[in-house]
Amino acid sequence: MSGRRLLRHGRLFTSSGAGVLDDGAVVVEDGRIAWVGPDRDLRAGEGEDEETDLEHGLVTPGLVDAHSHPVYAGERFAEIAARSAGAPYGEIAAAGGGIAATVAATRAASRAELAVGLEERLASFLSGGTTTLEAKTGYHLDEEGELAAVRLLAERAGGGPGPGGRALPALEVTFLGGHAVGPEWAGDPDAYAAEVARWCPAARAAGARHADVFCDEGYFTVRQGRVMLEAARDAGLVPRLHADELARTGGAELAAELGCASADHLLCVDEAGIAALAAAGVVATLAPVTALSMGRTPPARALLEAGVTLALGSDHNPGTCGTTSMSLVVALGVAELGLSVVEALVAATAGGARSLRLGDRGRLEAGLRADLVSWEADHEGAFAWSYGLAPRRVFLEGRPVA
Amino acid sequence: MSGRRLLRHGRLFTSSGAGVLDDGAVVVEDGRIAWVGPDRDLRAGEGEDEETDLEHGLVTPGLVDAHSHPVYAGERFAEIAARSAGAPYGEIAAAGGGIAATVAATRAASRAELAVGLEERLASFLSGGTTTLEAKTGYHLDEEGELAAVRLLAERAGGGPGPGGRALPALEVTFLGGHAVGPEWAGDPDAYAAEVARWCPAARAAGARHADVFCDEGYFTVRQGRVMLEAARDAGLVPRLHADELARTGGAELAAELGCASADHLLCVDEAGIAALAAAGVVATLAPVTALSMGRTPPARALLEAGVTLALGSDHNPGTCGTTSMSLVVALGVAELGLSVVEALVAATAGGARSLRLGDRGRLEAGLRADLVSWEADHEGAFAWSYGLAPRRVFLEGRPVA
Repeated sequence: MSGRRLLRHGRLFTSSGAGVLDDGAVVVEDGRIAWVGPDRDLRAGEGEDEETDLEHGLVTPGLVDAHSHPVYAGERFAEIAARSAGAPYGEIAAAGGGIAATVAATRAASRAELAVGLEERLASFLSGGTTTLEAKTGYHLDEEGELAAVRLLAERAGGGPGPGGRALPALEVTFLGGHAVGPEWAGDPDAYAAEVARWCPAARAAGARHADVFCDEGYFTVRQGRVMLEAARDAGLVPRLHADELARTGGAELAAELGCASADHLLCVDEAGIAALAAAGVVATLAPVTALSMGRTPPARALLEAGVTLALGSDHNPGTCGTTSMSLVVALGVAELGLSVVEALVAATAGGARSLRLGDRGRLEAGLRADLVSWEADHEGAFAWSYGLAPRRVFLEGRPVA
Repeated sequence: MSGRRLLRHGRLFTSSGAGVLDDGAVVVEDGRIAWVGPDRDLRAGEGEDEETDLEHGLVTPGLVDAHSHPVYAGERFAEIAARSAGAPYGEIAAAGGGIAATVAATRAASRAELAVGLEERLASFLSGGTTTLEAKTGYHLDEEGELAAVRLLAERAGGGPGPGGRALPALEVTFLGGHAVGPEWAGDPDAYAAEVARWCPAARAAGARHADVFCDEGYFTVRQGRVMLEAARDAGLVPRLHADELARTGGAELAAELGCASADHLLCVDEAGIAALAAAGVVATLAPVTALSMGRTPPARALLEAGVTLALGSDHNPGTCGTTSMSLVVALGVAELGLSVVEALVAATAGGARSLRLGDRGRLEAGLRADLVSWEADHEGAFAWSYGLAPRRVFLEGRPVA
């Protein structure tokens, strides 16, 4: 049948119960995985229009980056340098830096400028092997801007060639109106939280599927987070949460209470918070790059031992982290978080899909999307060695895109 | 005069007392920096054959990677994955893994195979902005092999187009016969250390300029290190030392006693060791990537406060770290070691030059080699954000090479 593609003789890291197939084959049909198994069990098909010999190269599911902030304008390099030299964040914020600087630059940018910057970043994620990217709004912090950011993302959510002509990853669009208090509501976070709650139905209608809140010291309280995420849930959005990153404020318990898909960061979570996440089936999405710069390691092993599913994210954002490389994140998952290579790769694929409530990807399994990456290596251990392993070829729904 | 090149309107990070020049110019002549200063002070030259407008892009001295192990064959990805899953190193070594696996593969490789692998790696270092690379032998561990590895490096030490036709960084060749006990001397490290001492004059004659010893628990004792490095010094090699990485065995004091150019790693060094390094003017060369995977942070701030000059290295090696990116190392210097961007960049340029006793590079200063990199950014803070900032253009002795 036409449209079939065979990938043969690969080392298949399936991220599923099948484990690693040393000499495996994948049959792709109509953008889905039609069959996967040991190469010797492959039955001759008819009229395959393309057969690729992987020559024992490593193949994984497309990587899922479960936490990113890619819609913004401007850069904050001078601020980053000043912070590294010890300038207190309060001082930087008082001088108009911090998230306020990005909000001002993002609001000032035209839609076309935002689109160009966004597509450049998205293309870079894809070229690093990320086929699905969770992408948050949150640098407008007013109704019109936040909804425009949702639309900007939603128009590109399908993956493949975007409006600008570049190949892009599939996006999971997250409405993050609750990223910080909008400047017009400065000093009145309750009023702003009520506004964000009011915007949720429109965000859903504009194409968001998830909603997130930065629930932490200096940002939103648990009570304010609840207001926003209950409204989000009522509007049909899947809630998730920046939780217990800067301080232990109870974000983990809130995530559990609301049935969030994911609680993210968790640098300061304690045993009780971990137990709450485990009991509620909330995924823990960890961001090793930004954790490193915070000088604190999230309790990855304790989370795993409690039965919590892990996901990984780049946390790409204009203030602290510019990487788009999930293979760097996987390497840091091993070196910094103490995960095994298998655990880190499962977190970066199947775990990410679960963090985003996506049942159709993240594993090499018949019936799932044919989002695959073949890598410049013949063993998954290369991820922990390379600190940025390069894809050989990236397939999105079976089509080679990078 | 012909052969002059002007670089104008750049943000110049000089790594010298001149600090950062916001709108600076560099005049390059005969491979050297003829002049550097504010663009407005530039006096018209005659017959410049090339003028580049940097458009406010960042320029730094070429990065100096002060610690690498690039001469080897084979890979150890399966072992790395097993180690990440908790397999004890002793078990891996007993199964023929660890450094013994690389020694076997390296000895089995032909000279041509070693050269191809080496040049591929070296080209990758250069394309990441490293214009000078400290490159160690140490995966043969017998006389003939170690000397062949020295020659392999020495033939490529000049930088620019190598024998294989690719542009390579300048190399500082380090004889590391004392990396581990050669298999033929297993169980008799004293005898092996005496052998290595005997090979030093030949290593010098073959083109090595430095000698290094892995002085640590399970490798060589301080006494054995002294035997090898005294012989190295007598042979005209500049001594340096892997010191106090796995345990506090007194490597720092040995480095001070011998007047080593550098003591490297220093994860376990204490106050007394730091004081000894400071008093003797030994540079501390830190390797944040491998430190991360050891789960220990070297005391960068305490070293700086004691007056020790810092250098940075990738520690590229087949067993733990494949990165060739000094801009990733600089980012980790900030996030992991707590350096400011300025401190990390100075360590990766001027500090590296000092670690290698090179007075002719590492700063943007008249009279020094015109090893320069222009970057895809307009501020040095971009290093801490990007986790692998990309060069726009790399100049080696004034010639654009990448």
